Amino acid sequence: MNIVLLSGGSGKRLWPLSNDIRSKQFIKIFKDENGDYESMVQRMYRQIRAVDENATITIATSKNQVSAIHNQLGENVGISVEPCRRDTFPAIALATAYLTDVIKVDPEEPVVICPVDPYVEMDYFEALSDLADIARRGEANLVLMGIEPTYPSEKYGYIIPKNDDAISTVLSFKEKPDMQTARQYIEKGALWNGGVFAYKLKYVLQRAHEMIDFTDYQDLYAKYDTLEKISFDYAVVEKEPSIQVMRFSGQWKDLGTWNTLTEAMDEKVVGDAQMNENCSNVHIVNEIGVPILAMGLKDVVISASPEGILVSDKEQSSYIKPFVDEMDQQIMFAEKSWGSFRVIDVEDESLTIKITLNAGHRMNYHSHDYRDEVWTIIEGEGKTIVDGMEQPVKAGDVVTIESGCRHTIIADTELKIIEVQLGKEISVHDKHKFELEE
Amino acid sequence: MNIVLLSGGSGKRLWPLSNDIRSKQFIKIFKDENGDYESMVQRMYRQIRAVDENATITIATSKNQVSAIHNQLGENVGISVEPCRRDTFPAIALATAYLTDVIKVDPEEPVVICPVDPYVEMDYFEALSDLADIARRGEANLVLMGIEPTYPSEKYGYIIPKNDDAISTVLSFKEKPDMQTARQYIEKGALWNGGVFAYKLKYVLQRAHEMIDFTDYQDLYAKYDTLEKISFDYAVVEKEPSIQVMRFSGQWKDLGTWNTLTEAMDEKVVGDAQMNENCSNVHIVNEIGVPILAMGLKDVVISASPEGILVSDKEQSSYIKPFVDEMDQQIMFAEKSWGSFRVIDVEDESLTIKITLNAGHRMNYHSHDYRDEVWTIIEGEGKTIVDGMEQPVKAGDVVTIESGCRHTIIADTELKIIEVQLGKEISVHDKHKFELEE
Repeated sequence: MNIVLLSGGSGKRLWPLSNDIRSKQFIKIFKDENGDYESMVQRMYRQIRAVDENATITIATSKNQVSAIHNQLGENVGISVEPCRRDTFPAIALATAYLTDVIKVDPEEPVVICPVDPYVEMDYFEALSDLADIARRGEANLVLMGIEPTYPSEKYGYIIPKNDDAISTVLSFKEKPDMQTARQYIEKGALWNGGVFAYKLKYVLQRAHEMIDFTDYQDLYAKYDTLEKISFDYAVVEKEPSIQVMRFSGQWKDLGTWNTLTEAMDEKVVGDAQMNENCSNVHIVNEIGVPILAMGLKDVVISASPEGILVSDKEQSSYIKPFVDEMDQQIMFAEKSWGSFRVIDVEDESLTIKITLNAGHRMNYHSHDYRDEVWTIIEGEGKTIVDGMEQPVKAGDVVTIESGCRHTIIADTELKIIEVQLGKEISVHDKHKFELEE
Repeated sequence: MNIVLLSGGSGKRLWPLSNDIRSKQFIKIFKDENGDYESMVQRMYRQIRAVDENATITIATSKNQVSAIHNQLGENVGISVEPCRRDTFPAIALATAYLTDVIKVDPEEPVVICPVDPYVEMDYFEALSDLADIARRGEANLVLMGIEPTYPSEKYGYIIPKNDDAISTVLSFKEKPDMQTARQYIEKGALWNGGVFAYKLKYVLQRAHEMIDFTDYQDLYAKYDTLEKISFDYAVVEKEPSIQVMRFSGQWKDLGTWNTLTEAMDEKVVGDAQMNENCSNVHIVNEIGVPILAMGLKDVVISASPEGILVSDKEQSSYIKPFVDEMDQQIMFAEKSWGSFRVIDVEDESLTIKITLNAGHRMNYHSHDYRDEVWTIIEGEGKTIVDGMEQPVKAGDVVTIESGCRHTIIADTELKIIEVQLGKEISVHDKHKFELEE
């Protein structure tokens, strides 16, 4: 099976555990078979591999998620990176070209496109495999998954099938309705449109060539920023007369709010937290190093990260977005391809961060114009390169780096570093990257 | 007026804002006339000064509160330090000897003893002044304040006065009763015993000399650890036939739990926090550098410090103690006479703290046996002395201090320092202090 996972979203609804660079799919709150915590993207990746260990999995995403994806799924995962945001049609066209031109998949082969964030069980992936098989048969150009509605939701678009067969021709699509209308749709046998569909690669390639002047993946990638923003629905689905829908009645949950997310949690508490016996329906996710104590609460979610603390009635948590929009705060933690960092102190003219560099990894070789840095190695062994000079370092060593100075650090074992940044204008944008001559 | 404020308590009931070294009286949650936050002890100190600007105020406390008292009340406040804990009679005897022998107050003068933690208004201090005047008249050896009960509390001892005059002879004292009994006491005109009383200094000195073999304050201080643990009630009050009580009907609140403390807060929020319009009777005290967002909560207190986060129904918050007793955690922040510190990162073999040294102050000259330290100055100017070598330092400078090395830092302006401690056995007890030769 060829599968493209669409990984997008800014995830403000799950503040403070998601932020501009960590979307909700990277929060580790589920448990795998070994009892280790895993994120939505790790869970889905594992589930796909369990259903089809030879699946070609490609993550279609934006630049700012690449580090987190490598951190959570390893270096070898296929990623189709959008150079900039251009809505779903260009993104899907790019991923399709990536599969044929980079991964060299036969254009006659089907691919399944699905969002990375629904919370599903194994039967969902078996259904995706069925969806690919139906697309391979080629009775229609596009095959959608139609999810059997469990309630008249206003949050989803609806698919009206011709009949109630397992596989049916699509009569029409409906935009997100009000509840009244949703009820009527459901009475007529409508299905939720979860944005999951399959097609033969050549089909979308052809549509893409009709609308965009490009030769291959590299060319499409190079001119990506010139493309029109247009959704896949508008560009393809609405114009296509030959569409089938396959019913799916298994578990399919959209975990977009704290309310729905906590319903899917295996345990009431993730991280250092406890509650007294008078708490009911309380969930706590604690990603900071100090304990949380909850007493006498009902229907409440508590979540804490280096960016803030949310304490919310579960129902009310869906109204979080405007509050978070106004915060506009500094990124306080991130997962990078080489490890992770966390801001531990902020002053006007200094910023102190704790860096964890995974064994065998290195930072980019880089310099800053407007800040000096002091590294104190607190754990591990490795080497630094400062203006071309290589030096071994270990716990207890201090490295001072003046502005303008090129530097990197390479971890032989896992390295932990306290980095103090000093300057009047400290900014993530003050960075020049260089190639390292070795 | 001579007044001794008894400042004790471990303050676990107000976790995470109080801990073993910061008792509840040091939490800054009230507002003074200028709109600045002040603690209970600062508030009480300010109120006494407003009623009697020449009052001799002495704080009777244990060693571990001295730094916080100097930090909040300045260097010139009178402090009678108990070398170790020996219950209230030795503590009051020591403070009494301190007043006569160190401050040189005439033993014929009265003194008022009161706990530092009730939440009161100015009329309370006028009543204390009256209490001193009554003691000066000498109709009785001991004059107590009797607080008019507002409900049949099980938390306080009761004083049974002979009659309902403003000043009356005491008939008897009653231990904390059950609610039924409390009702009966109140019907008989009983008053709450808030532990507030006045006496002529010579009276307690005489009792002390009868029970303890000592010459003066210095001698009593020197043999303090050999003294028997005995309460003032047991040693003095129960044996004294000549006791008066003065009624007090003004505001007097014991802010011992989050529930009662939040009732006395001037604002619903202290620190970086917001709540949506569906919160009612919610109070937030946030002492950490990240925002708190509360949504749809009712009757809840949220408080956050570098030691943890409490989210509790207000009623339930009074049951916090057993949970906190079990935590037994590291001290993560403290106010010192020279400034303050906060732990910002903890690893097995390193500890990173942020130190703020107030202008004109210095650390003790000291060394450690089992750890190295790295100081990165992030703000201010001053000088370091390392093994006798003095050196000016400013923001951006790095000082490395190996184990065994004597060191201190002196703040010319306010200094902020990131200190990384490195070693296999990092402990607050690993410290040798030295005199500095200048």
